[in-house]
Amino acid sequence: MPLDLDAIYVDLHRHPELSFQEHRTAGVISEHLTALGIPHETGVGRTGVVATLENGDGPVIWLRADTDGLPVPEQTGLDYASTARGVDPAGVDVPVMHACGHDMHITALLGALERLWTERGGWAGTIVALFQPAEEFGAGARAMLDDGLLDRFPRPEVVLGQHVTSTLPAGRLGARPGTQMAAAEGLTVTLHGRGGHGSRPHETIDPVVLAAATVMRLQTIVARETSAQDIAVVTVGSIHAGLKHNIIPAEATLELSLRYTTDDQRERLLSQVHRIVNAEAAASGVEVPPTFDGVFTLPPTINDEAATERVMGAFRAAFGEHDVVDPGLFTGSEDVSWFARDAGVPLVYWFWGGVDPEAYAAAVAAGTLGRDIPANHSPFYAPVMHPTIERGVDALVVAARAWLG
Amino acid sequence: MPLDLDAIYVDLHRHPELSFQEHRTAGVISEHLTALGIPHETGVGRTGVVATLENGDGPVIWLRADTDGLPVPEQTGLDYASTARGVDPAGVDVPVMHACGHDMHITALLGALERLWTERGGWAGTIVALFQPAEEFGAGARAMLDDGLLDRFPRPEVVLGQHVTSTLPAGRLGARPGTQMAAAEGLTVTLHGRGGHGSRPHETIDPVVLAAATVMRLQTIVARETSAQDIAVVTVGSIHAGLKHNIIPAEATLELSLRYTTDDQRERLLSQVHRIVNAEAAASGVEVPPTFDGVFTLPPTINDEAATERVMGAFRAAFGEHDVVDPGLFTGSEDVSWFARDAGVPLVYWFWGGVDPEAYAAAVAAGTLGRDIPANHSPFYAPVMHPTIERGVDALVVAARAWLG
Amino acid sequence: MPLDLDAIYVDLHRHPELSFQEHRTAGVISEHLTALGIPHETGVGRTGVVATLENGDGPVIWLRADTDGLPVPEQTGLDYASTARGVDPAGVDVPVMHACGHDMHITALLGALERLWTERGGWAGTIVALFQPAEEFGAGARAMLDDGLLDRFPRPEVVLGQHVTSTLPAGRLGARPGTQMAAAEGLTVTLHGRGGHGSRPHETIDPVVLAAATVMRLQTIVARETSAQDIAVVTVGSIHAGLKHNIIPAEATLELSLRYTTDDQRERLLSQVHRIVNAEAAASGVEVPPTFDGVFTLPPTINDEAATERVMGAFRAAFGEHDVVDPGLFTGSEDVSWFARDAGVPLVYWFWGGVDPEAYAAAVAAGTLGRDIPANHSPFYAPVMHPTIERGVDALVVAARAWLG
Amino acid sequence: MPLDLDAIYVDLHRHPELSFQEHRTAGVISEHLTALGIPHETGVGRTGVVATLENGDGPVIWLRADTDGLPVPEQTGLDYASTARGVDPAGVDVPVMHACGHDMHITALLGALERLWTERGGWAGTIVALFQPAEEFGAGARAMLDDGLLDRFPRPEVVLGQHVTSTLPAGRLGARPGTQMAAAEGLTVTLHGRGGHGSRPHETIDPVVLAAATVMRLQTIVARETSAQDIAVVTVGSIHAGLKHNIIPAEATLELSLRYTTDDQRERLLSQVHRIVNAEAAASGVEVPPTFDGVFTLPPTINDEAATERVMGAFRAAFGEHDVVDPGLFTGSEDVSWFARDAGVPLVYWFWGGVDPEAYAAAVAAGTLGRDIPANHSPFYAPVMHPTIERGVDALVVAARAWLG
Repeated sequence: MPLDLDAIYVDLHRHPELSFQEHRTAGVISEHLTALGIPHETGVGRTGVVATLENGDGPVIWLRADTDGLPVPEQTGLDYASTARGVDPAGVDVPVMHACGHDMHITALLGALERLWTERGGWAGTIVALFQPAEEFGAGARAMLDDGLLDRFPRPEVVLGQHVTSTLPAGRLGARPGTQMAAAEGLTVTLHGRGGHGSRPHETIDPVVLAAATVMRLQTIVARETSAQDIAVVTVGSIHAGLKHNIIPAEATLELSLRYTTDDQRERLLSQVHRIVNAEAAASGVEVPPTFDGVFTLPPTINDEAATERVMGAFRAAFGEHDVVDPGLFTGSEDVSWFARDAGVPLVYWFWGGVDPEAYAAAVAAGTLGRDIPANHSPFYAPVMHPTIERGVDALVVAARAWLG
Repeated sequence: MPLDLDAIYVDLHRHPELSFQEHRTAGVISEHLTALGIPHETGVGRTGVVATLENGDGPVIWLRADTDGLPVPEQTGLDYASTARGVDPAGVDVPVMHACGHDMHITALLGALERLWTERGGWAGTIVALFQPAEEFGAGARAMLDDGLLDRFPRPEVVLGQHVTSTLPAGRLGARPGTQMAAAEGLTVTLHGRGGHGSRPHETIDPVVLAAATVMRLQTIVARETSAQDIAVVTVGSIHAGLKHNIIPAEATLELSLRYTTDDQRERLLSQVHRIVNAEAAASGVEVPPTFDGVFTLPPTINDEAATERVMGAFRAAFGEHDVVDPGLFTGSEDVSWFARDAGVPLVYWFWGGVDPEAYAAAVAAGTLGRDIPANHSPFYAPVMHPTIERGVDALVVAARAWLG
Repeated sequence: MPLDLDAIYVDLHRHPELSFQEHRTAGVISEHLTALGIPHETGVGRTGVVATLENGDGPVIWLRADTDGLPVPEQTGLDYASTARGVDPAGVDVPVMHACGHDMHITALLGALERLWTERGGWAGTIVALFQPAEEFGAGARAMLDDGLLDRFPRPEVVLGQHVTSTLPAGRLGARPGTQMAAAEGLTVTLHGRGGHGSRPHETIDPVVLAAATVMRLQTIVARETSAQDIAVVTVGSIHAGLKHNIIPAEATLELSLRYTTDDQRERLLSQVHRIVNAEAAASGVEVPPTFDGVFTLPPTINDEAATERVMGAFRAAFGEHDVVDPGLFTGSEDVSWFARDAGVPLVYWFWGGVDPEAYAAAVAAGTLGRDIPANHSPFYAPVMHPTIERGVDALVVAARAWLG
Repeated sequence: MPLDLDAIYVDLHRHPELSFQEHRTAGVISEHLTALGIPHETGVGRTGVVATLENGDGPVIWLRADTDGLPVPEQTGLDYASTARGVDPAGVDVPVMHACGHDMHITALLGALERLWTERGGWAGTIVALFQPAEEFGAGARAMLDDGLLDRFPRPEVVLGQHVTSTLPAGRLGARPGTQMAAAEGLTVTLHGRGGHGSRPHETIDPVVLAAATVMRLQTIVARETSAQDIAVVTVGSIHAGLKHNIIPAEATLELSLRYTTDDQRERLLSQVHRIVNAEAAASGVEVPPTFDGVFTLPPTINDEAATERVMGAFRAAFGEHDVVDPGLFTGSEDVSWFARDAGVPLVYWFWGGVDPEAYAAAVAAGTLGRDIPANHSPFYAPVMHPTIERGVDALVVAARAWLG
């Protein structure tokens, strides 16, 4: 009995789960793989699922879909909208939504595996399908690799993946060779001052003023120390110090995220952040130097030139020139690169449109694309089901067969 | 049976309570007043106690002691050190300590009332004794006044109060005419930006950067807009914005406290803070102007010139010139002024030393007074019991009789 | 007698002149045009020269070279190095050097005119050659246009120009369709405070602190309010306030330059600068709002897509694929666009390499291109004469004949 | 023939001279001293004059008056207003005015010397009168001392001096024991960055941004690192960097002045300035550390307790309690202290009123004293001649005779 992809998508959309909590999701994936007769393992990297489609001699390729939802309160008004809730790492009960479209990623990969398995007379080699958890934490790919992925499953020649996007109409696909998505680095900086009474600041080393001076100085990394042609973002996403009006606290904490597109830039940005944070602390005359804690590293998503041309060529042949475009560079980040980096093989990561084509055309005509079409991560985000599902399935099949014949 | 002031002090020290939670404390006070046969009411201003000593025609005076402890973990090593705990307004369980010496204030006032009541043949008039809660919140005096203090009890000609201090040796007393303690104002500022993804700051109005720029600019109030001869402090005691590294939050909150010595300066400082906060928000192009919430106003503690001279003169006569000094202006703040302000009468508020005289002399000789002697509010703070208790009792009696004969 | 281009180049290199002072240079150009029998006018836009090569019915094209030197002390060590001096607009005597290669531009255009005039049997139409002064001031193109250029000379179908560059080896050429060079805007901001004695800042409105806060806040335009994918630079090139240590001045002056690539971005950046400057002044409580004076506007150098493809196609045909590249976007700025903008016709502006090919290859191999090869405007900058001159002449001829047959 | 003090004052007022250019002024002083038969030397410390009144055995005292004018355009409208001009150290022609009242100082000292010399039968000892140049530069006292003052003239037991002030009515006098005037320190800080093109800030180390960050951080010295009860001012009186809009300069210069009241505070402030400047330079990643150049040091003007009481007691006896007041601490600075410091003897420096008593009383009544009465250094400043001259003469005579009998 063929998979009912519409039903699968709606079911997944209704039941999103937070990162590393994708237990029901993994169960659904496993159930459908079992129905298809595809061997697979669950619990890889905590809540990941790995399916292996062995089909004679030939190349090994990896196909990857990510599976987690986000702590976003769905406001799409869809009749299959999520009302799910979850408990975030801080122990807080939050609403959960597939606001990034990972439900579509799972659906398309299941559909593609079904087609490829059904048509396995037409190709040869091995497909390893990765249903990866916790992409939103930037931690799931590493968890799977650290769980022995490369040793427990056939090593690939190429890693392929896709992301549904609010920036393209349904039916359209695209990838750019080279940097496709920016890298991201999260780090936590703790500034150590000396607390005291609010009326006697001269007996303290005020960490609030130190934190403020540091935030202002960090702006110069992008504004003065980065080429206008390079992509770099330094965001202080949180700042916390103190408990009350009239007590000067002893510490301040900054949570930073950095965006960049090359490994060199990562070194440069980290070095600049360290230089400025340490110097501002020295300007305050601190007794204890600042503490730096790395929280996550998402490498740049760099599409291999040759492999990307191979996939895009296959797309153009299958879907026509008109539906294969340069999607531009995305400043968001992904952890898919870890698979290709650890395996030492090329990556091809493309975007596939999920916007209703008529709404897209109208917004383009009105010049209101960015405003009218809810973006991934928005409470209003939802791809249209058709032809998004079909094109997502087709794209994976076409890309896979560019290697497997 | 006379009061055992040592035992009372030790008991109070062992059982400190947080602001507006001084239920046991009020019970202890009431029990001793009852034992002395002094009429009194409890529950005035939530956990305050008011005793009234009527003794024929004559002036009415108010004597005030404050009663609350602080969320400080006692580290004095005393055998009567506090191990008490309490629940602070945020619902957090915290250690509690009489780190500001209010246990000594209660003890001395009880001792003084005992003496005055016993010796009531020697004077005439009415003494109203205020055991005020929640001084550390800057809220207890207002709570008692708002509970009808001026209508329910005889109105005074003068308000007298005292504070034990780590800046004077036990035995020494002092007040300065005019401003004795600075005023304090607490206000909370909420800065409204626009949140978004950490990689796309240009779609946001970053409240972290806005908060940092505001904190830096606020420094200029004291550094550039205040006469070097005036006393002013602008402290940002807390700054909070954001939840994680790569999300730009929508809001930032600053908790400020201001110190000053005149009502004019209060107007000026508040106006400067508003001007800078609003302008910095405008520099960020905010869509919603900042919100200002007043949290507390502690007026300057201003000693009436004539009344202070009257008390100091009586002190000099009773204790000798050597033990009556100018203690200097304190930049800390008090809410005792509300009693005198609301009643429209003079205030005299003096300091009385609590430091072991030998340790004090040694520290003066070594030039290490500020470093060696733990200050009020420190986990190591504790006055020596003798002669601190005696001198505190004597001071109240001498001051009261400067009015009552 | 054919022109001796080497001698012309060396002579021009030895005798650079500052902007709008190119009197000798214009004389040299005029002398050679006269020798070639080409009709021309001098004094167009003060020190510009315009030659007109009429050659029957056909398109009109404009070829442009700029002619001025820079106040840079030549340190190339060449035997034909400049020792010239000039008087800058501030009246200061300064060294002068062709540090931007405009001597090469003149030489190549003279050589191209000679060739085209000699070979005028092979094409038809009209060439207007513009020897433009004062490009370094961003003022020469406007001066020629304001002097009636469009009315006094045949109007073009296309404007063509070229710049020699330290970023390509001699022999190589390139242009990119769309934005080729950034735009630039210069503006002067005067901040009005209130002066006074250095010991009494509270009686002043300190413009030094206001200027500092403004400079810090301006950093956020690029760091927080610009997409990481857009090109924008906000430079405060000068800051001036005050005369001595202990007097607080009444004013501060900031000289800003902005870089961007579209007219929309110009509006946005100017609006952001105004917003921040005005708000920071409000934060200081100024009595007189800041003054803004526009100083220069250099539009983005935008290559017409079709016309650029026409020229690049002709280059590829003439010089081979290998020597025609995408030179990348330059964040520097040019005033050549005014000719095409005022005429309402396409612009093609390409770069041509001037670096010794062996030195270039060595630097590429060593990864030290940016460090080892002196850049335009450096005291050490000098293109190699060969094949730079030949390729510059050829490029102009090939590009011109792409229109003229 | 007695001195015509009115005529002397009017003549000096009409002919002010800039610091170290007091040639005509020294000539006038010398002429009158000669007329009085008082031995004196000119040219002490360039343009200083020293008179010696030896009168038998007894104490030696120094009386000091300063003699220079200011580069201020007089706008008093007086018929004896100055129209003088001078050339300042930068070579600029400027208006000159006795805007600080030094003409009154000279006049009073001449009048006092006349009286004391005439009445020399009534006292015994030696008076050395110092007519000191260049007080406004903070350099004249040092110049005289460095010219051998202590070796060439009798060493004093006490140094006495006075300053006419807009804060007291004519007739009134006052000094406070201890710190009477703040100290001042001038230093120049040069920040070394790396220059470059305005469109390529990432290749530079932008000294404009570094200077701005430094100025903002310096605010925290007073705002956060100084007790609210201490007097401290950190003024950046000038900031200079850069020549034009689109060139990032290589250096920035800050001229700072510091105010404080004790030698300890000087050490602390200098150390704080160094710490912040060096750390901000480190935050910019400079290759060359900042340069610090001390420009002037004016010590605090500290009145010896006993000597001041001696003078004030004599004043009270001579002029009545009402006319001898505490003038408050002045945050301006003086170089008179060097005389006492170098000699190792007490200083008494008092203020004497110069405001028309009726205008003063009216302004006090209206609460507009600071606004209505032009202050020293203002273009509108002028003391009334009477009784200012008389009281200035009397004060010097009375003070001198407190030592000389």
